Amino acid sequence: MLMMTKKRSLMAKMKVDNCKKEIEVYLSSYFKDKGVYNKLIYEASSYSLNIGGKRIRPILLMLSYDLYKEDYSKVIPMAAAIEMIHTYSLIHDDLPAMDNDDLRRGKPTNHKVYGEGIATLAGDALLNESMIVMINFSLNHGEKALKASKIISEAAGAEGMIGGQVVDILSETKKSISEDELKYMHLKKTGELIKASIIAGAILGEAPKEDVEILNLFGIKLGLAFQIKDDILDVVGKVEKLGKNTKKDEHMNKCNFITMYGIEKCEVLCKTLTDECIELLNRLSVSATYLKTLTFNLLEREY
Amino acid sequence: MLMMTKKRSLMAKMKVDNCKKEIEVYLSSYFKDKGVYNKLIYEASSYSLNIGGKRIRPILLMLSYDLYKEDYSKVIPMAAAIEMIHTYSLIHDDLPAMDNDDLRRGKPTNHKVYGEGIATLAGDALLNESMIVMINFSLNHGEKALKASKIISEAAGAEGMIGGQVVDILSETKKSISEDELKYMHLKKTGELIKASIIAGAILGEAPKEDVEILNLFGIKLGLAFQIKDDILDVVGKVEKLGKNTKKDEHMNKCNFITMYGIEKCEVLCKTLTDECIELLNRLSVSATYLKTLTFNLLEREY
Repeated sequence: MLMMTKKRSLMAKMKVDNCKKEIEVYLSSYFKDKGVYNKLIYEASSYSLNIGGKRIRPILLMLSYDLYKEDYSKVIPMAAAIEMIHTYSLIHDDLPAMDNDDLRRGKPTNHKVYGEGIATLAGDALLNESMIVMINFSLNHGEKALKASKIISEAAGAEGMIGGQVVDILSETKKSISEDELKYMHLKKTGELIKASIIAGAILGEAPKEDVEILNLFGIKLGLAFQIKDDILDVVGKVEKLGKNTKKDEHMNKCNFITMYGIEKCEVLCKTLTDECIELLNRLSVSATYLKTLTFNLLEREY
Repeated sequence: MLMMTKKRSLMAKMKVDNCKKEIEVYLSSYFKDKGVYNKLIYEASSYSLNIGGKRIRPILLMLSYDLYKEDYSKVIPMAAAIEMIHTYSLIHDDLPAMDNDDLRRGKPTNHKVYGEGIATLAGDALLNESMIVMINFSLNHGEKALKASKIISEAAGAEGMIGGQVVDILSETKKSISEDELKYMHLKKTGELIKASIIAGAILGEAPKEDVEILNLFGIKLGLAFQIKDDILDVVGKVEKLGKNTKKDEHMNKCNFITMYGIEKCEVLCKTLTDECIELLNRLSVSATYLKTLTFNLLEREY
């Protein structure tokens, strides 16, 4: 169980808020004043990149780095690269040929504003830009940055996030999918990039090998808890808070944790995973107050 | 003017053929036996990656490296990364929301076989895979590989190929575009990745700085000549050789070099650019027989 004073909890909240603020300042100015004839690609990319969101992945990278090194501002480009990857995946996921969503974070989706062609290219541009950012960071920060880039790009790829999206698309045409397929889908689609954010931060912070292994397990469980909570909110959440239509998966006969286990079992599962996450963080060689608070907040969130 | 014996020309052809063969062996086995539930993404990616094509970009990288170092087999992964980027751009370009093409290299386009959702993801997966390949190569080959990766990823991005594609999409809604816009579009859409292939090869081969600068100019002119030749073939070429429908740009009222200058002027322009390319290659510190032959062949090609 977590023993934490009110003051500590408040400090943790401030830290997370600061991470979020810093990453958003970086992202909002990233494409500013860029482009000539191609200006529209920066406008479309910026639109989705700065539409809001929890910024979980970049915050996790920064907090994980912060366990071992001071001044997490130094790794903001790497944190931003992850958010670019996450954002591109949302733009492509929302396309009519994929999830066909009109609303994302309470605003029209990218293709609803810029058309499908530009939205496809904006997604491509964000994935490509994440590559440029990671390569430039690696040129300045050597091998540990390159290793972190490897973790991130593999997590985003066909064996990671994209692999999960493929199974997601395939599952829509099936009446039911196996428990193994469902777990695979979520571990890959949501979990891999969350896990990679944590490990990349630790590698950039030159964490001891044992800690990286613990954080790897922590990342898997956190990613799964995060996805189950998302599925729960999709059933019981409020549209105005979520900024997207709820029960969408159900309407589309999509398999998720709720349709597989029922809501009560999911709530227990989510709680158990969160406890296991805290347990793992307690085994690190350093104190992980901020990461613990973030873990609790992800479970308690309403959107 | 090029002075070359028949024997030299034959040797050059063999070299180019060998490069092509080696890159195709690498690409055809790259995704083999990969995947579990996500197997379809590898099937779809492989389909377009191994559908044929001239392999100009990887061959250029290998020949450019070959100017300075022996055993161009060593840089095959980097050459493959470029072909993955080129292939992803074709898959996305062919989508109904973009060029809406049913035929590519004489075969059904990716989305015609796998559907739009999987085709979008196959494109994403190939771009992402190129990133993984370049990062792994850089981990094994140090800074020069990372610098070459930077050149390639910037050429593929919003300031490069994607930027050109955006202007291409925008030009479709206009009645006419300016000469500057047309040049920008082609320099970026086709030219940047061709230029990057050449420069990346030279950097990997540790070419002297002066040579890299000459090859930069060579790359710009070659990319432009290549695109003008493509536009010419689009009007006068044979469907069975091109493997795609011709005069498509004209039907769609698209601006290209032919609609801008007329076919005769384009043929002169193409010839002039090729001569200038050879002139530049003559200024290198090393002999560039193979690159010269390839340059001539690109001008003389019928598809």
